[in-house]
Amino acid sequence: MTQSQSTNELPTAVDFSHHINSRSRARHPSPLKDIIRFMAVEDMVSLAGGLPHPSFFPFHTVTVTASAPTAENSLCSLELPLEGFLQYGSGSGNAELRAWCREFTQRVHRPAYADWEVLLHPGNTNAWGKVVGLLCEPDDYILCESYTYPSAQAFWIPLGNKAAPVPSDAEGMRADALAQTLREWDDSHPGARQPRVLYLVSVGSNPSGVTMSTKRRQDIYDVCVEHDVIIVEDDPYFFLQYPEYNASQVAMDDPELVGNDEFLRSLTPSMLQIDHQGRVIRLESFSKTLAPGLRLGYFVANSVFTERLLRATEVETQDPSGLSQALTLRLMQSWGIGGYLGWLQGLSVEYRCRRDWMIDAFSQHFRLENAAEDSRALVAHLSDIPIFSFVPPTGGMFIWACFYLSQNSAFKQLRHDENVVDPEQTVADQLWRQFAEAKVLLTPGSYYHPWEGPDKITTHARGATPSTTNFRFSFSMTTKEEMERGIARMARVIRASWKLDQLVG
Amino acid sequence: MTQSQSTNELPTAVDFSHHINSRSRARHPSPLKDIIRFMAVEDMVSLAGGLPHPSFFPFHTVTVTASAPTAENSLCSLELPLEGFLQYGSGSGNAELRAWCREFTQRVHRPAYADWEVLLHPGNTNAWGKVVGLLCEPDDYILCESYTYPSAQAFWIPLGNKAAPVPSDAEGMRADALAQTLREWDDSHPGARQPRVLYLVSVGSNPSGVTMSTKRRQDIYDVCVEHDVIIVEDDPYFFLQYPEYNASQVAMDDPELVGNDEFLRSLTPSMLQIDHQGRVIRLESFSKTLAPGLRLGYFVANSVFTERLLRATEVETQDPSGLSQALTLRLMQSWGIGGYLGWLQGLSVEYRCRRDWMIDAFSQHFRLENAAEDSRALVAHLSDIPIFSFVPPTGGMFIWACFYLSQNSAFKQLRHDENVVDPEQTVADQLWRQFAEAKVLLTPGSYYHPWEGPDKITTHARGATPSTTNFRFSFSMTTKEEMERGIARMARVIRASWKLDQLVG
Repeated sequence: MTQSQSTNELPTAVDFSHHINSRSRARHPSPLKDIIRFMAVEDMVSLAGGLPHPSFFPFHTVTVTASAPTAENSLCSLELPLEGFLQYGSGSGNAELRAWCREFTQRVHRPAYADWEVLLHPGNTNAWGKVVGLLCEPDDYILCESYTYPSAQAFWIPLGNKAAPVPSDAEGMRADALAQTLREWDDSHPGARQPRVLYLVSVGSNPSGVTMSTKRRQDIYDVCVEHDVIIVEDDPYFFLQYPEYNASQVAMDDPELVGNDEFLRSLTPSMLQIDHQGRVIRLESFSKTLAPGLRLGYFVANSVFTERLLRATEVETQDPSGLSQALTLRLMQSWGIGGYLGWLQGLSVEYRCRRDWMIDAFSQHFRLENAAEDSRALVAHLSDIPIFSFVPPTGGMFIWACFYLSQNSAFKQLRHDENVVDPEQTVADQLWRQFAEAKVLLTPGSYYHPWEGPDKITTHARGATPSTTNFRFSFSMTTKEEMERGIARMARVIRASWKLDQLVG
Repeated sequence: MTQSQSTNELPTAVDFSHHINSRSRARHPSPLKDIIRFMAVEDMVSLAGGLPHPSFFPFHTVTVTASAPTAENSLCSLELPLEGFLQYGSGSGNAELRAWCREFTQRVHRPAYADWEVLLHPGNTNAWGKVVGLLCEPDDYILCESYTYPSAQAFWIPLGNKAAPVPSDAEGMRADALAQTLREWDDSHPGARQPRVLYLVSVGSNPSGVTMSTKRRQDIYDVCVEHDVIIVEDDPYFFLQYPEYNASQVAMDDPELVGNDEFLRSLTPSMLQIDHQGRVIRLESFSKTLAPGLRLGYFVANSVFTERLLRATEVETQDPSGLSQALTLRLMQSWGIGGYLGWLQGLSVEYRCRRDWMIDAFSQHFRLENAAEDSRALVAHLSDIPIFSFVPPTGGMFIWACFYLSQNSAFKQLRHDENVVDPEQTVADQLWRQFAEAKVLLTPGSYYHPWEGPDKITTHARGATPSTTNFRFSFSMTTKEEMERGIARMARVIRASWKLDQLVG
């Protein structure tokens, strides 16, 4: 579609109400509609609402000093609107802020169907929980990437849900693998309902760091249409997209920014942008672009889904914090959409710079080589031994490293020990502790193993590649010097654990 | 116990872990503990945390003008702490704010066991949902008052839970009725598990307006000990407690405040104060005392429960809004506990005044008489016909009126019409609409009917008193003049609907 195409010409969403689970269907309609309609009548005396009187709220003005969107060290002063933000809301959030989110979504994602809606929520963690509450029956399997976000899983595991992981490559989840999983479902999972929900972090995925290519998105979407799968796009890193890593290009301290339209064109399109049916539920968050402490984000979805999500919101959380809403609204009014896009581009430059620092630090202590085949992966060697490989991320905050254990001395012993149930994990645990004792903390790959049930815990049972394990590196929080120090420490631990110094000496 | 008794001398909580439901048990322990422990090590380089860098948060200062706690028209200026409040938190909320809540709880409620904990939450609506997620299995019955808060029910109904309402009187839920319900449970509800959770709004109950007496609290508590029931005390109106209504005492515009200790002594004790076992989960909220838009409150409960509630918080909501936490912390630091208690006493005077306005307005249009027996109820008459009765509330924001329909002309016709399934509700619906058309809005009593299943909807099937229906009056939001206007309109509608003018004329 072209940007000039008006929403009116777009198709309306397909009816996906058959996806709504029994629990969500059982929500009684809000009985307050009649009252709210009458409240608008002139001269009405309402003795109905059980609200505290706003004259007893002890807050009168809130003034915030905020960054200007692009000019560094420049500040703006914001006087927050308080009326309405201190009182109970309707559940869907402030109407002005919702309208802003709608306009921003139209500008950035240009959804390809007409009747999409915006509903505020208190952060993507909560939003994902509400989506599970909307779509999943107990014991349903949920399609996800081959490694997936622990908090999302930690929500669904107690409900009896399990992960149906789909293999990925350097372009993200494989569409052929997704199609195969769904086609062969009844044989591979006798008695289990075919998965109907795909949970996806498709930009700078946590933990894999991979950003799904445009072509791959379209292919994944087509498979989901064919098998009637709802796509839940948890996309906090969408604006943190970077060009490919280039070792010869020194990270720029003060790179030139491009215009907003060019910035938007540089971004891989979201699944929402591809969606012409209303099949995508997008979870949008201000946590990575403004501040997590706001606990604020919004759903973009078809109106049948947002109506049910609103019913859940009314009884599960109510409106997000009024202060967070007021601050975000006033900031956006002050910055404008153009200013916010400038801010986002500035952010992406900062995080790109940190990605480069991290890979540069790898290259100081390891010999980086392209992987043999036409993959985008790099392999880090020490003493000509491949230690780990990774795909240099083009988005997000993470580098996901696959460690090769076959030359590791402890692993070589343990792999033949019949008493060791999962030698890969045993060595991974040892390594993690050795790293920590050498004062460098990584996140263990095991945190991201999809939960397929208690019988699929070990490396072997999960069907993972033998003699490998994973660690996640985050490049968001440390300085260049700290990264270099941390990677140097890691290299020392690896030399010892692989007994490389003995090898050479 | 005396106030000087130290926490150390108190017993620890009874082990209530058998109350934790299977879903809550199935929550995996947070895998981050190891990482967090190592993070504190000096010179540690953490590449583990996936947090956005705080230097990219665009907020620098937040300044709030707030009321001084007691002196009217006096303001104080608060500079909010931002460090830590803009970043992701641990789930349990800011430690300083939690410590303040703990100190305040100790001062006000003096829990009678040692190992109670405080955990922040984003409002009592969400907190109640988390408690259901902690304690209730699907299809469990939940003990509640004979009329109960709709949002609490709207949460549990889709889960398959049902209400087990317990008859009340002017002192609140009847302990003998609670004991009988539990004793006869297996006969009255064959196949259903005995209720293990009591949901209670024991001060200024919504909708009944009743505040449970001290003696009754002790009796209810004892029954819960005998039958091993966990008490969930949803107590947003605790500090809005008033003396009895006295028609001859004109509401004071500027009453004298008493000292904080005397104010606290004037309050009915909470269930938490009576609890010596750790059997009470208290849901505390700032919504009615500061502002609902904060979406902030806290649990007080035994540590076994708070640990599981924290696990749920981590994956369902994370910390409450950082801005709301920072504002509440700074306000409390500025006011001090003494100042906040003064603020609360001031609030209670304001709402007490509004209660008096409302009952005074009743007395302008109806003849109020004490109910015949030794009940605290008043009966409102028109033309010597009893129209409705109510217990003048000594807390909260609501007056709950029971309307007598036997002399209502429409009801007299409908009650003998075999085609009318529920004549009481039919007349209630008509009346509500007639009120609304005369420009006075009340809340229909049907909103508060406990949900006992689809076969217990009608007045008859619910076992409600025949020829009656209820409406809730809120006195929190309108001026004296609006109340008088609203009640005058209501009286006119009643005259017409009861055909009282014809009667007289």
